[in-house]
Amino acid sequence: MKVDGKHWRSIWLEPDGWSVGIIDQTLLPHRFETARLTSLADAARAISTMQVRGAPLIGATAAYGLCLALRDDASDDAIERARAKLVTTRRTAVNLRWALDEVAAAVRNRPRSERAASAYERARQICDEDIAINKSIGWHGQQLIDAIAANKPTGGPVKILTHCNAGWLATVDWGTATAPIYLAHDRGVAVHVLVDETRPRNQGALTAWELGHHGVPHTVIADNAGGHLMQRGEVDLVIVGADRVAANGDAANKIGTYLKALAAQASGVPFYMALPSPTIDLSIGDGLDIPIEERDGNEVATISGRTADGRIERVRVLPDESPVANPAFDVTPARLITGFITERGVIAPGALADAFPERVAARPAAE
Amino acid sequence: MKVDGKHWRSIWLEPDGWSVGIIDQTLLPHRFETARLTSLADAARAISTMQVRGAPLIGATAAYGLCLALRDDASDDAIERARAKLVTTRRTAVNLRWALDEVAAAVRNRPRSERAASAYERARQICDEDIAINKSIGWHGQQLIDAIAANKPTGGPVKILTHCNAGWLATVDWGTATAPIYLAHDRGVAVHVLVDETRPRNQGALTAWELGHHGVPHTVIADNAGGHLMQRGEVDLVIVGADRVAANGDAANKIGTYLKALAAQASGVPFYMALPSPTIDLSIGDGLDIPIEERDGNEVATISGRTADGRIERVRVLPDESPVANPAFDVTPARLITGFITERGVIAPGALADAFPERVAARPAAE
Repeated sequence: MKVDGKHWRSIWLEPDGWSVGIIDQTLLPHRFETARLTSLADAARAISTMQVRGAPLIGATAAYGLCLALRDDASDDAIERARAKLVTTRRTAVNLRWALDEVAAAVRNRPRSERAASAYERARQICDEDIAINKSIGWHGQQLIDAIAANKPTGGPVKILTHCNAGWLATVDWGTATAPIYLAHDRGVAVHVLVDETRPRNQGALTAWELGHHGVPHTVIADNAGGHLMQRGEVDLVIVGADRVAANGDAANKIGTYLKALAAQASGVPFYMALPSPTIDLSIGDGLDIPIEERDGNEVATISGRTADGRIERVRVLPDESPVANPAFDVTPARLITGFITERGVIAPGALADAFPERVAARPAAE
Repeated sequence: MKVDGKHWRSIWLEPDGWSVGIIDQTLLPHRFETARLTSLADAARAISTMQVRGAPLIGATAAYGLCLALRDDASDDAIERARAKLVTTRRTAVNLRWALDEVAAAVRNRPRSERAASAYERARQICDEDIAINKSIGWHGQQLIDAIAANKPTGGPVKILTHCNAGWLATVDWGTATAPIYLAHDRGVAVHVLVDETRPRNQGALTAWELGHHGVPHTVIADNAGGHLMQRGEVDLVIVGADRVAANGDAANKIGTYLKALAAQASGVPFYMALPSPTIDLSIGDGLDIPIEERDGNEVATISGRTADGRIERVRVLPDESPVANPAFDVTPARLITGFITERGVIAPGALADAFPERVAARPAAE
């Protein structure tokens, strides 16, 4: 998508043909800066510090991280060490592991001298596939928006609530939850996006930044406000992303998603999760078995922002001695999910295995 | 309650016998400073800028604000002007209007020369009554905590989630939601409080500050985390305050309360609201008719905190151009409320009119 009129992806191969460029998302929305990854350690750090975030982009970055490792040492042992390092950077997103498996499979049984080239080729494909998948998600999802627009007795924009950033910054391009919104908007359908701020890391600021740069009307709200707005008829549908979907249709996504799903059901608002098939993990039967990452309490206790005179400053908002807990994801039960918007259409939570047979037992259940 | 070993109330008459002392809550949890109110304008500003906040304390401050106005001009006209000014400072809390009515009734039909003294006497009583009411709320509420403690098969502390600050800072002393917690803790019952940060104004920092100074074990969480923790059995009960309760048992409280009530019901966690009877407004039939204050979007877009070198700094966390909506309260439907903890015991949402007959039609329904 565009930033100041120029087209960007969230991750790219640099002109040198081997190092990897990313947007440093920890500086957004205040500063737009890129960073260059030149080693496995760079890639692992970019994921764990959330310079890159979002399940699909984590997968793409991990894929390139494995490429960078292979450049240094293409032995089987080195590949396994690199996979082990990358897989522990984030616990919840399954795309991370999927992407590592894909790259590892692409180099298996190849001579060492060809492994790096094969890995880079598979990483490039993973990025291109992500874009194609997201466009397909957008195509299916925009029909839901169109249907609501056609049935609005009062006219006015279709009001869509989203949580966290499942935008193009969370993927390689287009986004998952935002793809239907961008496509509908580009076609002239009036939409208005309610953007949850998404504490503690405020990824809603990324979504607002994206939407603003693309010209999509939006309003940022505190996470606490969504239930109230749904009660008052101010939300027509909810579209969020997902970090891992279990076989029973339960889905892990950014902490707080579950609360919005409860409110949507209570007010009769359709609740959709948009995701590419690598997010589906049919080896996990029950969503409550999805491992939930617990992150540093300083993400809650402190916050970074821009001062009136333009400096980026981190301030503490809690008393010094207050203990903090910071679970990063929660699980929305299948019964609260209207449907999954995927590259193969809108799938009911109970129909995942039929729609994605290749994801059944794609991997061992062991964590 | 105590701050650094010294007993404080949240509002007091200064030794001069007429000016009013408050704790400037906009500086907490970083700085403990008091402020002195010497005029109607001071009192109105203290309420609207949230130097004082919390329905009961707003009522007490408004009562003293009317006293300060009466000192300058005790005419009927001046009283009406002062009431009109104070009643518009916050839209949702009904205690504000109740307190103004009480003081106005106390001076009605009295000679002008005696009015100020009568007003101060009634304001003093309102403060003392608030403390007595809160102790009574605490006495009734601690029995709920005791019952859970007695039935915990695994032992361990009773885990209580609270939202916003319904602590002693929100009242004259003891708090509403916190009164049962303080009393149980003081009696040696093991409790652990999960404190919602409560965006956008982060009143959870006030609750954490209070609990820390009193030695009550607690953990601060993002507002988004409560549903997840209830799903995982990490919450034994929820106790929050309320800003206005309608005749049908629906109750307005800080934005986000409704989401926690939904999650509590979904996980079978008891959900209580603790409140003094002046919070009950039986002139409003349906909670969705309670007026909801919309506050400045800068409360969401910017946040104030302490830098590493000890300065208090306000930083912007959203893109400059992002529009923001900021509803300050939401309404929790009666069906989600296990009971109201009041000075007359724990009352079912459907039994309010029987328990508080004097609150029926206590005022006209017109806003």
